Amino acid sequence: MLSLIILTALSIIAYVFTDELIPKLSELFIKAGIYGIDLCKTSKEKIPEAVGVVSGCVFLVTSFLFIPIVFGSSLMNREHFPHNEFAELLAALLSICCMLLLGFADDVLDLRWRYKLILPTIASLPLLVVYYVNFNSTTFIVPIPLRQFLGASVNIGFLYYIYMGMLAVFCTNAINILAGINGLEVGQSVIIAISIIVFDVIELRGDQYKAHCFSLHIMIPYLATTLALLKHNWYPSKVFVGDTFCYVSGMTFAVVGILSHFSKTVLLFFIPQIINFVYSVPQLFHIIPCPRHRLPKYSAETDLLQASRTLIVKKDLNFLSNLIIGILSNLSLIEKTEDDVSITINNMTLINLFLIKLGPTTEVRLTIFLMLFQILCTCIAFLIRYPMASYFYDTKI
Amino acid sequence: MLSLIILTALSIIAYVFTDELIPKLSELFIKAGIYGIDLCKTSKEKIPEAVGVVSGCVFLVTSFLFIPIVFGSSLMNREHFPHNEFAELLAALLSICCMLLLGFADDVLDLRWRYKLILPTIASLPLLVVYYVNFNSTTFIVPIPLRQFLGASVNIGFLYYIYMGMLAVFCTNAINILAGINGLEVGQSVIIAISIIVFDVIELRGDQYKAHCFSLHIMIPYLATTLALLKHNWYPSKVFVGDTFCYVSGMTFAVVGILSHFSKTVLLFFIPQIINFVYSVPQLFHIIPCPRHRLPKYSAETDLLQASRTLIVKKDLNFLSNLIIGILSNLSLIEKTEDDVSITINNMTLINLFLIKLGPTTEVRLTIFLMLFQILCTCIAFLIRYPMASYFYDTKI
Repeated sequence: MLSLIILTALSIIAYVFTDELIPKLSELFIKAGIYGIDLCKTSKEKIPEAVGVVSGCVFLVTSFLFIPIVFGSSLMNREHFPHNEFAELLAALLSICCMLLLGFADDVLDLRWRYKLILPTIASLPLLVVYYVNFNSTTFIVPIPLRQFLGASVNIGFLYYIYMGMLAVFCTNAINILAGINGLEVGQSVIIAISIIVFDVIELRGDQYKAHCFSLHIMIPYLATTLALLKHNWYPSKVFVGDTFCYVSGMTFAVVGILSHFSKTVLLFFIPQIINFVYSVPQLFHIIPCPRHRLPKYSAETDLLQASRTLIVKKDLNFLSNLIIGILSNLSLIEKTEDDVSITINNMTLINLFLIKLGPTTEVRLTIFLMLFQILCTCIAFLIRYPMASYFYDTKI
Repeated sequence: MLSLIILTALSIIAYVFTDELIPKLSELFIKAGIYGIDLCKTSKEKIPEAVGVVSGCVFLVTSFLFIPIVFGSSLMNREHFPHNEFAELLAALLSICCMLLLGFADDVLDLRWRYKLILPTIASLPLLVVYYVNFNSTTFIVPIPLRQFLGASVNIGFLYYIYMGMLAVFCTNAINILAGINGLEVGQSVIIAISIIVFDVIELRGDQYKAHCFSLHIMIPYLATTLALLKHNWYPSKVFVGDTFCYVSGMTFAVVGILSHFSKTVLLFFIPQIINFVYSVPQLFHIIPCPRHRLPKYSAETDLLQASRTLIVKKDLNFLSNLIIGILSNLSLIEKTEDDVSITINNMTLINLFLIKLGPTTEVRLTIFLMLFQILCTCIAFLIRYPMASYFYDTKI
């Protein structure tokens, strides 16, 4: 408990440090040519990109400094030093550090799309190895209604490692595709981080308290440095966070989910990202034509955002794409206008869906609404996790 | 032993992969604005910088893939899994990964000089922590002639950690300042790596075979990826390696020295770097005026290099600087010309010293001579390490 207090104090220092470091380094980013122009603003000033690397580095260094404190009491008793827990923490930090490096390289060098799937897989290798060595528990507990068919638990063996590798890929990319307006990537990550911390604190009195302590050791410094980043990334953004930030955040959540054994609960905190992903699938997999950018459309005259749209020639649509558009349109989940030869639909992202429902709105109001939706989904996640889980599982998820 | 054979095979694949990846990614580096112009060539084409990050990443990934193989036999016997050795390897990779990230950030963002000292210190933190946890042996064995004053061994406690932190700083910067001509940074690192590998192989039959196995697990993939880099960095360079490479190399040598307990032997393989550092001290610390660049001077007409020189007004010299110049000049270690108001001396780097002795020469010949000198010093190091050490120590260093 004392170590958590020290960690919180250390994290507050990390917050202040990150907050001061970001504006100082911004100029270096611009000088190095790592900058972008904010497409939803009238001013065309250069805004540093990939600044997530700064908060990521401070997060990492804070975690390094914290190692002797976590293991301080154990060091007195060197005979029984928990080498396996120590290896877990090192593997977690190694995966995050690796993701930070690869994310930054991606931002600077602008790697191709396929790398975005390969890199998180590579970075999760140390994690999988330590999981194999320390736990190697590849058993899923079967929900009660299915037990008559499958038994109480199923050992899926090697598939479990595939699942964990894919979790890292999913978490990193899910945040990356729910992005594009000021403060959204960082805002959603802050809410997910707070959700995990609340969950940890609730479970701290349970029998899995060690796993939740481990999770807190990673999440608290992550939250502190990310809050400092949010301050500078919030509307109007002074810095952009880059893929670096999405990679590091996704990997951090995946690491905590895997090593603390609550990966399914972590996924529950990703409901908006999952909705966005499922909603995006028809365009991502080119079942429905997809433009290069699906960002909302900014009107300089009104300073408002509205949903961006894609015009599709009708003869380019096949049976499947017609079916999807028909169903979504009947459910009012897409806005469709039509003439003889073509139809126009909004681009299928959660951001555009919100814009359809809200009408043209300011960027900051849109971000706040999406944040509120994320908070609502966290509440639903806790409802699923606590009262409802007991219907499906006699033990905890 | 089997694991070493598999590692060698895996490292050969890593060599081929790095060799193919470097030219493929070169274009991305240039597009991202990370390039330099070779000052010792007539053609002014753009040459990608910081390509050490590519070989570094492949080195890291090879080491990840290799973890299950190293610990494969131990995994069968999960009860007695060597968690402490596993933590050591993870800490080593974490320090190297961290250095790769910080080095690349330095190359891209062009950080100030003071960061060059801070960054390796930060990156060596995980290493120091694992050393504290696993060994915490801070005892120096005293050479026999001094034992009557100090006793057989001295426990220097906290100072030992300062020594290890400084070792990382020294190794990274020592390679960084013996640089500037095609292939030199990578060439010297290859020779140091081979020296360490030879030393490991000799000691593999000794009682410290585990520590030397650990060292080989890191050095073999390092050597393979670095050789691939050397192929592209050798005269005439198609790529530059950047500070990234010097940082990663220095940290790799420091890691191996610290965790395998032969840091003093590693330092013996750094004789040319130590000579270069000591020779540079008067200019580095501005006792003697130092120009911004001390690279050799290239003559486009002859395509030869000659020592670069600095003109110093006599009244800028104080007693100490006059003394140093006097002594070095008498020892023929600097070339001095003089008139009534000023003197001109060569810039004090090992490269310029070689140019004074060799006379104007081609870049590739100069690199080869410096490589030969490095090899000669390695032979001297082995002489010191084996026949001579027994005069000073009854046990091994």
